[in-house]
Amino acid sequence: MALKLYGLPMSTNTTRAMICLHEKEVDFELVPVNVFTAEHKEPPFLSKNPFGLIPVLEDGELTLFESRAITAYVAEKFKETEPDLIRHKDAKEGALVKVWTEVESHYYEPAVSPIIYEHFVAPFQGKEPDKTVIDTNVEKLKKVLDVYEAKLSSSKYLAGEFYSLADLSHVSETHYLMQTPCASLINDRPHVKAWWEDISSRSAFNKVVGGMTFGQNQE
Amino acid sequence: MALKLYGLPMSTNTTRAMICLHEKEVDFELVPVNVFTAEHKEPPFLSKNPFGLIPVLEDGELTLFESRAITAYVAEKFKETEPDLIRHKDAKEGALVKVWTEVESHYYEPAVSPIIYEHFVAPFQGKEPDKTVIDTNVEKLKKVLDVYEAKLSSSKYLAGEFYSLADLSHVSETHYLMQTPCASLINDRPHVKAWWEDISSRSAFNKVVGGMTFGQNQE
Ligand SMILES: N[C@@H](CCC(=O)N[C@@H](CS)C(=O)NCC(=O)O)C(=O)O
Ligand SMILES: N[C@@H](CCC(=O)N[C@@H](CS)C(=O)NCC(=O)O)C(=O)O
Repeated sequence: MALKLYGLPMSTNTTRAMICLHEKEVDFELVPVNVFTAEHKEPPFLSKNPFGLIPVLEDGELTLFESRAITAYVAEKFKETEPDLIRHKDAKEGALVKVWTEVESHYYEPAVSPIIYEHFVAPFQGKEPDKTVIDTNVEKLKKVLDVYEAKLSSSKYLAGEFYSLADLSHVSETHYLMQTPCASLINDRPHVKAWWEDISSRSAFNKVVGGMTFGQNQE
Repeated sequence: MALKLYGLPMSTNTTRAMICLHEKEVDFELVPVNVFTAEHKEPPFLSKNPFGLIPVLEDGELTLFESRAITAYVAEKFKETEPDLIRHKDAKEGALVKVWTEVESHYYEPAVSPIIYEHFVAPFQGKEPDKTVIDTNVEKLKKVLDVYEAKLSSSKYLAGEFYSLADLSHVSETHYLMQTPCASLINDRPHVKAWWEDISSRSAFNKVVGGMTFGQNQE
């Protein structure tokens, strides 16, 4: 039975899971959730994820939420299929994948997400982007990217010489970031830029990028 | 060679790692970091963790940071020692451990941490606790704890009928929360209260609780 992923192709957290499923060439059905009618805040969906957020993955009897738990599950279940995103044969490499996945979750996303919000969501809701929020998070993001630049000057990917869940976890939000003036934060750092060009050119991401239309077609 | 953990016994992120090491009865040396002289913002420490935060774990040649990456590594390395905190023999249980570990990281800690900060750190810095910050986060925390109350009324622990990394991850910050008036948020929810009494009575936590003195002895 095919896996079912509840979510939306324009949502960064949904595409984090989708990219992972595509890396593993896993057959799955994307079940759209109508966030505009708040379907995800009603009981049928809340029984899948009590926090009322997308994505949710169903694998038979098993229901999972939280995009990074979903990607970790998929990467583990299909660990014998290349690419081995969790480096399960090498405890040391596997540990470094966890470190840099936590970094994305605790430092990168918290800085990038408000920038994306102000550039895409605020205008969509008829609000002016809040310049103070953007500036504060640009400063935070610069510090994080300085660490990345140093790291990526000594290894090709965040956890080492291999593409892993740590890199994958960055792709969705960075795609939207690159459509804002803050793209320069990536482009001004040569190793970060080369890394982004590499990880955004993978075929798994190319399968989802067409659906990442938030901020478009809003004439 | 014993593992080395750089950190402080009063820091919640350090004790998250320590509790995990004690659960596995792993021999480790706690190397104190002088955060008051900002030792963690200087090159020798920054080469261990470029983000300049504690804890850091050294296992021979391997250096890890981020408390949840450290606990995941320790739980994986010593998975054959009871308790199996990652449920490595059952993919479904293991996946649910990941879900609820993410929940702690994305919803519980972001609400609890500012409450602890305002109650313990602000006074220590000679500032008044910011009531607005406390109130906002109390509201967030209530919603999270309502989900926990429902979950814990159907299973003894967050990920199922077994104590796991997901529960362990909550212990340090909840210990400080329980020393604030917000303890009532836990105590008013019978299943959350019973869960807290259970997880805080484990001997691994009792080995660290004596050092969790932030906010004390500040006459
Ligand atoms: N930490 C969660 C975040 C999930 C999340 O915030 N999803 C967004 C879409 S990208 C959502 O459901 N938004 C709808 C809402 O907030 O009501 C994860 O990684 O899955
Ligand atoms: N996400 C990190 C957070 C680490 C962290 O914030 N550590 C605190 C101590 S609990 C610290 O190093 N504080 C000193 C500072 O911020 O300068 C982890 O889980 O390890």
